[in-house]
Formats: sequence, C-alpha cells, structure tokens
Amino acid sequence: MTTDSWVPGSADGGFGIENLPYGVFSRPGELPRVGVAIGGFVLDLASLSAAGLVDDRRCFASGSLNAFMVAGRPVWEANRARLVELLTDEGFRERVEPHLIPVTDVALLRPFEVADYVDFFSSEHHARNTGRILRPRSEPLPSNWKRLPVAYHGRAGTVYPSGTPIIRPSGQRRTPGEPEPTYGPSTRLDFEAEVGFVAGVPSIPGRGVPAGAFRDHVFGFVLVNDWSARDVQMWESQPLGPFLGKSFATSISSWVVPVAALEPARVTPPVQDPEPLPYLRCAEPWGLDLHLEVLINGQVVARPRFADMYWTSPQQLAHATVNGAPLRTGDLFASGTVSGPDRDQRGCLLELTSNGDEPLELPDGTKRTYLEDGDTVTLRAQAPGASGSRITLGEVTGTVYPAQPPEAP
Amino acid sequence: MTTDSWVPGSADGGFGIENLPYGVFSRPGELPRVGVAIGGFVLDLASLSAAGLVDDRRCFASGSLNAFMVAGRPVWEANRARLVELLTDEGFRERVEPHLIPVTDVALLRPFEVADYVDFFSSEHHARNTGRILRPRSEPLPSNWKRLPVAYHGRAGTVYPSGTPIIRPSGQRRTPGEPEPTYGPSTRLDFEAEVGFVAGVPSIPGRGVPAGAFRDHVFGFVLVNDWSARDVQMWESQPLGPFLGKSFATSISSWVVPVAALEPARVTPPVQDPEPLPYLRCAEPWGLDLHLEVLINGQVVARPRFADMYWTSPQQLAHATVNGAPLRTGDLFASGTVSGPDRDQRGCLLELTSNGDEPLELPDGTKRTYLEDGDTVTLRAQAPGASGSRITLGEVTGTVYPAQPPEAP
Repeated sequence: MTTDSWVPGSADGGFGIENLPYGVFSRPGELPRVGVAIGGFVLDLASLSAAGLVDDRRCFASGSLNAFMVAGRPVWEANRARLVELLTDEGFRERVEPHLIPVTDVALLRPFEVADYVDFFSSEHHARNTGRILRPRSEPLPSNWKRLPVAYHGRAGTVYPSGTPIIRPSGQRRTPGEPEPTYGPSTRLDFEAEVGFVAGVPSIPGRGVPAGAFRDHVFGFVLVNDWSARDVQMWESQPLGPFLGKSFATSISSWVVPVAALEPARVTPPVQDPEPLPYLRCAEPWGLDLHLEVLINGQVVARPRFADMYWTSPQQLAHATVNGAPLRTGDLFASGTVSGPDRDQRGCLLELTSNGDEPLELPDGTKRTYLEDGDTVTLRAQAPGASGSRITLGEVTGTVYPAQPPEAP
Repeated sequence: MTTDSWVPGSADGGFGIENLPYGVFSRPGELPRVGVAIGGFVLDLASLSAAGLVDDRRCFASGSLNAFMVAGRPVWEANRARLVELLTDEGFRERVEPHLIPVTDVALLRPFEVADYVDFFSSEHHARNTGRILRPRSEPLPSNWKRLPVAYHGRAGTVYPSGTPIIRPSGQRRTPGEPEPTYGPSTRLDFEAEVGFVAGVPSIPGRGVPAGAFRDHVFGFVLVNDWSARDVQMWESQPLGPFLGKSFATSISSWVVPVAALEPARVTPPVQDPEPLPYLRCAEPWGLDLHLEVLINGQVVARPRFADMYWTSPQQLAHATVNGAPLRTGDLFASGTVSGPDRDQRGCLLELTSNGDEPLELPDGTKRTYLEDGDTVTLRAQAPGASGSRITLGEVTGTVYPAQPPEAP
C-alpha cells in the first residue's frame, strides 16, 4: 500500500490520500462547515480557505456541500489536486497542520441537502429473492426488469445522517392469513444495504443526461441504509409502490467519496442480456468493486458485493433523466439493496431470513427474524483505491428506538 | 352574493373578500414577493408591511410563501383578519390602494418551495375506472384501497408553476401486443385533474399528525395537474409504482387558497365502508364541495367534483405521517385524479377515452385520444365561500411542447 501524505497514520483505515471524502462537521459553539477526512483527522476546509491555502469560493463555510457540489467537475478536480499537494508536500505541513482536527473531536452532520431521493432496484439477486418471497406465484423478475432499471421516488425529508436514531414506525399492516388489517408498530423492521450517488451539477429541464455525462453531473458516492417496514410495505404497495414502509427513515454515510476516488474500483459489470436500448448503453465499464459489510450490534451478518449489480450508476442516471426531469444539486440516487448469489451476501433481513421464516443466528448466539428495539445496524464498505491502496466508504449507522405515540390532537 | 370590499369589481370572478388567496409575483426589474389576490388586483404584502399596515414579519418580501407558511395558524388567522379589515373599511382605502397592482401587470411565480411531493389515489371512481382499463383481469379496486388512502412519492423538483411549458417526455414504453419495448416520445400524454394541500407547520419526527390537527399544520389548497405519460407509466410501474411516467412535470396553480376560505365548502364525504381504523377517523366532515373544470384549448371537457372523493384531506395527512415521517414546510399532498360517476366527470384522458380506444370529441369538432403538441390544458375550480359567495381556485395551465433531444454527451 502506498501513501505519500505527511499526516500521521493516514495510510491506515481507508482514509488515505487516495480517498479524501468530503463531509460537514461542527464543534460545540461553532458553525457547521465542510471538511475532508484524512487518516484520523478532519481537514477544516473553511479555515484552510480563509488562510488562503485553497481556492476560496465561500462554499466551504456553508453548512452543506451543496454550494461546492454545484461548482462542477473542473472545480472538484482542481480542489482535489490542491488537497493532494497540501497533504503530501512536507513544505506545506507547518501551515496545514493547524487545520487538522481529530475526527473524535467533531460531530459529523448530514453532508448535503437532499433535493429529490430516488431508490432503484438494480440487484438481480435481490430482485429475484424478493420476487420469490413476496410474489411466490409469479415470475420472480417482472417483465420490465432487464429492460430498464426499475425505481421509485422516496421521501427526501427523511434522509438522515449516520447516527440519527431510528424510531420504529407504526402503521397499518395485515399479517398474512389474517382477514383484517391492524394498526401498530411494525413487527418486520428491516435494513437495506445500498450505495448511492449524489448529483452536483443541475441539468436542463426537458433534456436527458446521457450515461457518458455521469462525471460531469455526479459529485460522489455514499452508503445508504434504506430502512424498511416490511409488514407495512407489503400491505400498502399495490398498485403504486412503497410509501410508508420506506418513508420513515433513510440513513446516509457522513462522508461523500468523490467519483474520482472510485475510478480505480471500476470493473466490468455483469453481462446484460438483452442488450439495453441505446440510451442505457455506456461506453465505459461502470461496475464498482465495493465490498460492503452489514453489522448488527457490531457483528457482521452479510458481505454484499456492489460489483454484482446488474444496472450501473451511469445507466441509472440516464434512465432517471430520460423523460426530461432535470437534476438538481443534492438529488440522491440509491442503488436498491445490494445482494449477491450467496446467502451471506444478501443485503436485507427479508432475504437473510426468508421474510422471518428462517431466523438468522448472530455470531453471539442471539437470533433475529427482524430488527428489535435497541439493535444497531452499521454499513461499511471498502474499495480499491489508487496506487494499490484500499479506500473506505461509510460508515452509516443507526439504532432502533421504540415506536412513539402521535402528536396530541 | 355579498361583498363588503371597497376594491372595485372584487365581488366578481371568485377573488372576493371571502377568498384572499396567497401567491408570489414579480414585476420587471423587481424582486419576487408575496401578494394576495383581490378582484382583478394583487395586493402587495411586502410594500403593505413596509408601510406598517400589516404585521411585518419579513416573510412577505421573500420569494416564496414558505416563511409565512411556517409561522403557523395564529399568524395566518391574524393576517387574514387584518386583510379583511383593510379591504373592507373605507377608512383604510386611501392608504391601501397604492399597494394594489392590476394582476395583468405582474408575473405569477411558483408560490412556494416544494419540500416533498406525495400523490394520493383517493377517488373511488378513478381507481375503479383505471383498474378496469389497466388491469382488466383483476378486481378493479386493490384489496387495500378502502382500508387506507393509497399514495406514492412524486418528484418535488418538477413541480412547476402554472404556465410552465410542458415538454413532451421521452422514454421507454411497450405498446400492448408488441414483444419489445422501444424508446421515443410518449404517444399517450395525459393530464390529471387534482386538488392539493400544502403543509406550513412542520411536525415532530417519529410522531404522527392526527387528522384533527389538520388546520394546525396545513396552510392551504392548490389545483394540481399531474401530467402523466401513460405508455411509459404502464411499462415501468411493476413492482415499485409510477416513476418516469409522472416525474417529468406536475403543475400547480399560482394562488394558494387558505384553509379558512374553504370552511364553507366542507360537506359530508361519501360513506366509508368498512369503517377506517381509528387513526384515519375524523370528527368533522371534510369533504370539500369544489367544482372542477378541465379545459383543452379553452373547451371544457370534464367537470369533476371533489366532493365525490372517498378519502378526505385530513385522512390523507394522518395516513402520510402515521409512520412518523415528519412534515416539512412546503410538503405538497395531491389528491389523485378527481373523477365522478359520470363520463363527463372523469379527470383524465385515460378515463375519458378508455386509454385511447374511444376518442373524445371536443366542442370544436376535433378529436383527442391523448394530448397533441400545442394543446393547452387548463384546470379551474369554484367552491362555496362565506356569506353565500363563490370562490375560485386556480387556474393551473400548461401547453405541450415537442420532445427534445438529450444533452450533448
């Protein structure tokens, strides 16, 4: 593994010079601002730009990445190159070191304001598994599934930063076999391990964004936990899709990994048969060799591989905009649950437990069908970085809290 | 019909003292600001508050209603009472008149920033008609339909103000009977006549909003045209619901009618059988006696009645938040297509033409299956107002433009 940074320990832990993800942080009594992770530190870009060490576009002192994300690829690339220079050249060390803050001394906040949130369904293994479990009398894959990356809009207002408590949702659900639906806290609360990308540069209303323009519009990647109440979802979803079974919470990781950092992770995606329509074709391979881990209460329960995804991120972008719906800065696109062919590569409890029929035994000997109050779910991921390094995405974590009563009327 | 306003002609046209809807307007070279419609005029609330005539909370000089909407019901009520006083008491005429601008001299802009956009499916007639047309071999009403107000999230970023050009969407669609999907401009472009409400006061994450708290959270109502590409929608919607068939454009009216103005329009809604679960019950009748009109190129083609809706607005609000998803200021909730039992009460071409099988003859003798480039669709509505008056909602209008190619790669 190679690193040239003078930051102590930066070669370890996946936050080396090859990564440099962006986030938003604060310290008590101070305003939120933009930082970059390097080793065990946050580099304060607001103070660094105030000191004249990086180009000051006044976007780093704001409480979100949006102002920087809208600036576009030339600015992103120039800033990344400058950060590499500052963090590798010993000659800058004395001036840059005062802007490094131990990550343990800061609170990491939501990195960007979410405009719209779209959730795809792009893992063939996940689609087949859920089809078999939820629609046992139908073909597991819907007839459109290999023709287009199926997706729906989720709730942008409940995209929360890592660490936000997840309050168990209540709602209407019908237990299979029961004639009548009932109201109550969800008894089938699940996670979904996903990877998302966020748009930086808006597009023109009425004009689609070609897959080949992915790098010009997309700022970076995050890990996503698309929390799901399966009992609510199964009862409500016909004919218009998931609504309350998803809209209570979606968690994203604190650090946004730039697209440039993941170039070395690009791999050939699974063969697509039939060949997609021209607007979904992409000249470059855009599979991404991300190795995810799902942990319940600190114990690894699944290791999904993002390289197994059938539809790639540029294809998702081209599809989501083909009707002329423009991109806004902060639009978040999640992949759908990442699942692989093996049982321990499945990215949600619906699949890991066959909808609760086959409880999952955790390494500590306890069992889970679905999540219990007090459970903490953590997603993390690693990918190959430049120069043979490994880079880290995530983590995104959340703890389940008991259901709460409605507001007083 | 009663009016006490000194504004000339204010008793005519539905924008009398009983209505007083809010909007955002601008004049060339001036900043957008908040106004209220009265007769043929816009009352400039920014200049009125600068002159000390209404309470100045600095929310009227902003380019959206959001700052006023978040202020809450006591502020909304106080401001409404003050406007009635100013516009009816001749003693104020001399001081208020300079703040009246002919509506023909202003541009009406999007009245509020949309946070999340939820679209319901709450007309039983519409649900049965579309079920029969789209799923002829199934029960027209899904089994959950009378248990909960079915809904999905739409795209907030493409909610456009009345008058915005509607560019025909392209996309992937499969003609029934054809084996393969194709790419191209939608050939089944439709409108949907809907009524929406917008949240002003946020709610607490994790806590549902009871139906009885509707007036404490909801600011007002708009007309909504949920443009739909039926060929795209039908091919893409399994299993996660509509996506690109809807997300290219949704138009809303320029004027937001306060909840208070519609109190006289409240009527008993259709009987609900089975009785809904307790969280969906509402002590007050919340049917709304709104008479909608749909016009194509100025010719009325349908007259849906909102009083026919099965699920009411407070029930929709209670349902959408029952899982703890909090309200944000600017959350828009649309009713779904408003359709009645008679053919001329159907609120979309899918129903009016049986998915194109039975062309609709317009009063001018031309026929339509679906919308053609150049067609203008206008929705408007009237409701009973206070003191025996009639108040106007809307209008919301949009003209269809030809499909455009994607961005250059």
